[in-house]
Amino acid sequence: MLDQRYSDAIWHRIHQKTKPQGSLGQLESLAHQLALIASNRHGDVVTNISIHQPTAIVFAADHGIADQGVSIAPSAVTQQMVLNFLAGGAAINCFCSVNDVALKVVDCGILVPIESDHEHFLIQRLGERTANFAEQPAMSLLQVERGIELGKQLVTDIIASGSNIVMFGEMGIGNTSSAAALLAALSGRDASACVGRGTGISDKQLEKKIALVAQGVARCQGKKVSEILAEVGGYEIVQMVGGFLAAGENKVPVLVDGFIVSAAAYVATLIEPSCREVMIFAHQSHEIGHQYLLAELHAEPLLDLSLRLGEGTGAVLALPLVRAAAEFYSNMASFEQAGVVVD
Amino acid sequence: MLDQRYSDAIWHRIHQKTKPQGSLGQLESLAHQLALIASNRHGDVVTNISIHQPTAIVFAADHGIADQGVSIAPSAVTQQMVLNFLAGGAAINCFCSVNDVALKVVDCGILVPIESDHEHFLIQRLGERTANFAEQPAMSLLQVERGIELGKQLVTDIIASGSNIVMFGEMGIGNTSSAAALLAALSGRDASACVGRGTGISDKQLEKKIALVAQGVARCQGKKVSEILAEVGGYEIVQMVGGFLAAGENKVPVLVDGFIVSAAAYVATLIEPSCREVMIFAHQSHEIGHQYLLAELHAEPLLDLSLRLGEGTGAVLALPLVRAAAEFYSNMASFEQAGVVVD
Repeated sequence: MLDQRYSDAIWHRIHQKTKPQGSLGQLESLAHQLALIASNRHGDVVTNISIHQPTAIVFAADHGIADQGVSIAPSAVTQQMVLNFLAGGAAINCFCSVNDVALKVVDCGILVPIESDHEHFLIQRLGERTANFAEQPAMSLLQVERGIELGKQLVTDIIASGSNIVMFGEMGIGNTSSAAALLAALSGRDASACVGRGTGISDKQLEKKIALVAQGVARCQGKKVSEILAEVGGYEIVQMVGGFLAAGENKVPVLVDGFIVSAAAYVATLIEPSCREVMIFAHQSHEIGHQYLLAELHAEPLLDLSLRLGEGTGAVLALPLVRAAAEFYSNMASFEQAGVVVD
Repeated sequence: MLDQRYSDAIWHRIHQKTKPQGSLGQLESLAHQLALIASNRHGDVVTNISIHQPTAIVFAADHGIADQGVSIAPSAVTQQMVLNFLAGGAAINCFCSVNDVALKVVDCGILVPIESDHEHFLIQRLGERTANFAEQPAMSLLQVERGIELGKQLVTDIIASGSNIVMFGEMGIGNTSSAAALLAALSGRDASACVGRGTGISDKQLEKKIALVAQGVARCQGKKVSEILAEVGGYEIVQMVGGFLAAGENKVPVLVDGFIVSAAAYVATLIEPSCREVMIFAHQSHEIGHQYLLAELHAEPLLDLSLRLGEGTGAVLALPLVRAAAEFYSNMASFEQAGVVVD
């Protein structure tokens, strides 16, 4: 857990800035969170928060359930989109480029592997895609453990190389089904409340998706978190779980994208509650289950733009708000410094 | 009015991008708006939107009504904060710095003038502060006309010098009273619905503020927009009205900050409805009347961070979303370019 002993001094510093108390709204609690994390890393109250090498990591994998008609697109699109990421043509590339964010893409187990020596492409395949979780466990417990380790190591390495903020995103046709199943199984909510339209399925497909998710969830009764990950998880999801654990251990803030990434975040907090403290929730996704995940995580997201794309787009779009919070904490004048006298 | 003939081609371009249709939510309509404005300026459908010299303009002025106890701070704070802007110590400085935005500060009539040869400080004083509008007209019709002209010329000059996006902000102790009175007088809403706590007054002060605003509003019955500006407006507000008219005439997008700037935007649309088309509403302010202004303007703001600071902070915080929308419109691959096949 983060040491709270720096908290009052950080609030005091924020309240001395030349603005009515609280008038920067959510940016004030964000600045406090960033400063508390940095102070814990530093071992003293920091007066300056700098952002170094912000890095977005897109975890990609395929899902056996995708063949059951739960998505608008076939599994092949996962690979096509990964190629698009590597070629620089996707939304996430545009948002990274305009916000000066490094992008790494991880093959956690997409259906058709890619041969590429792109310097920002990492191969950490747990298999060729998960099994159809409506019928059988998505993966083995061994794969869950290995996935968590791989994700942990990756994020630890990125931090060691100089990044002090990371953003997680995902790509994987069918993965809203997996995220919905995790939410339902772990929170006790009914599958019908957790399943949404993903990137845009019909009423009939939605009904089928709910039924298939419910089948997987039924097998999770009474099981442990790692077993539930094996039953209904995804290769990208388990690696993100590891990534969140590493961010927590290393005391590095992580911007959480939408529904699927938040599901991984939720799982990580059930394994190690303290990793919640480094999570910054970037946006409220259009996907219905996301609000329940945010409620479970007591999270107030920064943006609400009706995004439902994934890829880490929401996380990267929220980074400028993090930069703004860090900047006002570090460089805004106090009433005394500025000679502003309100009373 | 903007020529809509480019609209379909712009939507077509957006819908060909490698993402499910609509999955970028509000950023898609924002990209469409930016492209429609740019296409009108260019005389053809643009395929690239670039942002040049984004400039925030803070209009500062004082208000006679401030002496009546409607604010947490005395009028002297307006000047102190303007000095803070010029010294680089305020929130708006931090947010401009981190988002690579130029900042200009305009004295539209603050109580105590400043002697400064700061290159980004402009003196366009309409007086030393407005009269107390609860008792008498805030200014003369001549001052209204001159203020609109000054604001128009300023924004026209900034655009001529190479800025193709501007952000308006304000500073002026007492100016939420003026904005609330404009909203009430022009929309027919009761003063009690339009008046909020500004930067944080007590229940008793709020009651008094409502009564004083209602007195000013009562004199506006049956009057024209320019006469209402004279009755209850502010020097910074009339100059912003001129600024919005200039942005519309020049077909340059303008990011609208919170309550006071939105009140000026509303007034501008009543004078020239077409200037609405270049307005981008940055955020939902915590100030109560702002939601009614946004409703009158049919505006969906980009951010909702419980900000209530002013200075243009919300407008500048929203600029990265504008940059992201411009970037994906310009540089994101189409399905065909990326070889992504969804059906």
